[in-house]
Amino acid sequence: MNIKGFTFSAVEAAIKKPGRLDLALILSEKPAAVAAVYTTNRVKAAPVLLSMERTRNGHCQALVVNSGNANACTGGQGMDDARETSRLVAEGLGIPDEAVLVSSTGVIGQNLPMERIRRAVPPLVEGLSEGTLADLAAAIMTTDTFPKMAVREGKAAGIPYVIAGVAKGAGMIMPNMATMLAFMVTDAAVDPAWLQQVFRDANDASFNIISVDGDTSTNDTSLIMANGAAGNIPIRPGTPESAQFAELLHEVLLTLAKDIVRDGEGATKFVEITVTGAVSNAEAKQAAMAVANSCLVKTAFFGQDANWGRILAAVGYSGARVDQDRLALRFDDVLIAQDGVLVGGDAEARSTAVLHKKEFAVTVDLRLGDGRATVYTSDLSYDYVKINADYRT
Amino acid sequence: MNIKGFTFSAVEAAIKKPGRLDLALILSEKPAAVAAVYTTNRVKAAPVLLSMERTRNGHCQALVVNSGNANACTGGQGMDDARETSRLVAEGLGIPDEAVLVSSTGVIGQNLPMERIRRAVPPLVEGLSEGTLADLAAAIMTTDTFPKMAVREGKAAGIPYVIAGVAKGAGMIMPNMATMLAFMVTDAAVDPAWLQQVFRDANDASFNIISVDGDTSTNDTSLIMANGAAGNIPIRPGTPESAQFAELLHEVLLTLAKDIVRDGEGATKFVEITVTGAVSNAEAKQAAMAVANSCLVKTAFFGQDANWGRILAAVGYSGARVDQDRLALRFDDVLIAQDGVLVGGDAEARSTAVLHKKEFAVTVDLRLGDGRATVYTSDLSYDYVKINADYRT
Repeated sequence: MNIKGFTFSAVEAAIKKPGRLDLALILSEKPAAVAAVYTTNRVKAAPVLLSMERTRNGHCQALVVNSGNANACTGGQGMDDARETSRLVAEGLGIPDEAVLVSSTGVIGQNLPMERIRRAVPPLVEGLSEGTLADLAAAIMTTDTFPKMAVREGKAAGIPYVIAGVAKGAGMIMPNMATMLAFMVTDAAVDPAWLQQVFRDANDASFNIISVDGDTSTNDTSLIMANGAAGNIPIRPGTPESAQFAELLHEVLLTLAKDIVRDGEGATKFVEITVTGAVSNAEAKQAAMAVANSCLVKTAFFGQDANWGRILAAVGYSGARVDQDRLALRFDDVLIAQDGVLVGGDAEARSTAVLHKKEFAVTVDLRLGDGRATVYTSDLSYDYVKINADYRT
Repeated sequence: MNIKGFTFSAVEAAIKKPGRLDLALILSEKPAAVAAVYTTNRVKAAPVLLSMERTRNGHCQALVVNSGNANACTGGQGMDDARETSRLVAEGLGIPDEAVLVSSTGVIGQNLPMERIRRAVPPLVEGLSEGTLADLAAAIMTTDTFPKMAVREGKAAGIPYVIAGVAKGAGMIMPNMATMLAFMVTDAAVDPAWLQQVFRDANDASFNIISVDGDTSTNDTSLIMANGAAGNIPIRPGTPESAQFAELLHEVLLTLAKDIVRDGEGATKFVEITVTGAVSNAEAKQAAMAVANSCLVKTAFFGQDANWGRILAAVGYSGARVDQDRLALRFDDVLIAQDGVLVGGDAEARSTAVLHKKEFAVTVDLRLGDGRATVYTSDLSYDYVKINADYRT
């Protein structure tokens, strides 16, 4: 698939174990509008600090990203390494230093192996002639088990354009950006100020409604480059084109976000959690997130146990206003609790059957107001513990 | 050990699996001053609602507690069952209904097996002649692997008194009360108004600084009965007696709280987490709790991995003010990170040695102010997942 005016490359720089792509590059043939959201963690990796600075003016031309090393908690040396990486790439491409963004994911607290990166940049730049977006998706994987890509096609005043994206997730997945990198490109021309807005909204309704383990990483980055190579008149807010673009962008991000949950570390279940009837949408999200982040709920999912009591308990401590005598709970369409107590008959047996599915929905109705929210989460399995107990060994 | 004016009893009521004590009773020979703190969860078990109402006047005479069933999310039937349990006990003891508190722990969402409780109350009351505090400690266990008891002796104006307590913990352990029951008795006479205050303070500095899994249960209760049978003049605030009583009470609660962490579900490590140099004590606790609750940090503890980066990342997202370039981190007395970056030499090897101990300390210095806090947590192991995946089966 071709996204006009963008080229991609990925190489093995030996940052990760041998035989795996770990250094990748996106180049736009001309400067692109850029919008980005970064981790809210107060401990920010060097590449995040550098890219935050460089996306402030709303434009960039290239992005270099490595996996295997987060370049976080690396102090002044980390900043020097991030800057050197961008300078090497800028020189190779013949573009200004400031037009190159840098991103990293992997182990925290170790310096980047700069000798290997210096050796890898020339083949990385050369590879732009034949690389694909799929190479990029593969190169940013850490404990991910499959690459994550999504593509949508739209038209602006009859001119076709593409929005495509890749993401990595796996661990430290929690709203406000997780150990999550997501890079989107579009050849559509988009009004730069509106791009910031629509991109932020799309993130709030995708990457910020998923949770694997409640940890927010030091490196989270989600960004989009829009280079206008499709040749359309820039999409502006309040037009039919902007409505379509916003919808397609949200679809790309939500597809990637759901895939991140499906591929959560050790995940065996994909669970959609909806809270309705809250006093506000914000309280609904608070309640849904408490359920999504509860270790006790997530281990029950892993055990295929329709433990509705733990779910109501999580809603109860979420901070959302709750009247325990009004609560209703469904597993898919099976009503198991009403007015805060167990429903009789075969509800428990039918709920257990739902829990045996790989993907299912949990719906809690607070019956207090019109607030509602949906979030996505995985279970908590032996493999989550195994992966994270052994991560650095 | 004798606590004047208190008797204890525990029986097998067949609420749990056969062969285990699961119904227990504390009786004070005369009405005792009582202070209590209850779960902050908005979903509260029936016995919590009933006991909250009955401790409001500051006095009670007996407590009946069962394990194996939480009587939570059981609606009006649950309230009826809690009231009936207290009435049966009150009738057996010949004291007013309102003087009997009720507490429950175990599975959420199932009705109490009242037929079994009705049969068990007569032998429970009869057993008061020979029961001990240790029987009570055993009867409230659920997934606990050992009973938890603590005793301290003091003197008020030369008159000896005893403060003793039992607790159960294991899962759903998180500040603001966990699935945690703790019952203290003292034969000291204590000014009732001050008892409320000193007991609340002692809870804040013990049960509210531990975390096993971040879940707050529907049933948490911590209470103390002070019956004055020691014969001292009631202890009043601002006296040497009150200082000693407060200290001993805190020791009893902290001993129980630490034992709850040591016996956390699947726990293989006991970790003391201290944050110093925060802008305030509150922010220090916020940061320490973020570390204590991080699944990624806790799995690293289980893996005996000195993953200091995850700890700094948790501090970073805690909400506490942080300057990442000032952070210092120690495992016991081994400095592994300073100014936010790894210390060279053999710090990593020595840190790994610390992580192989069963109990160790993590200290993070934010170097911003004078705020400090210490909390206690366990690791996150395969067994935590196993216990909670299979809990109801």
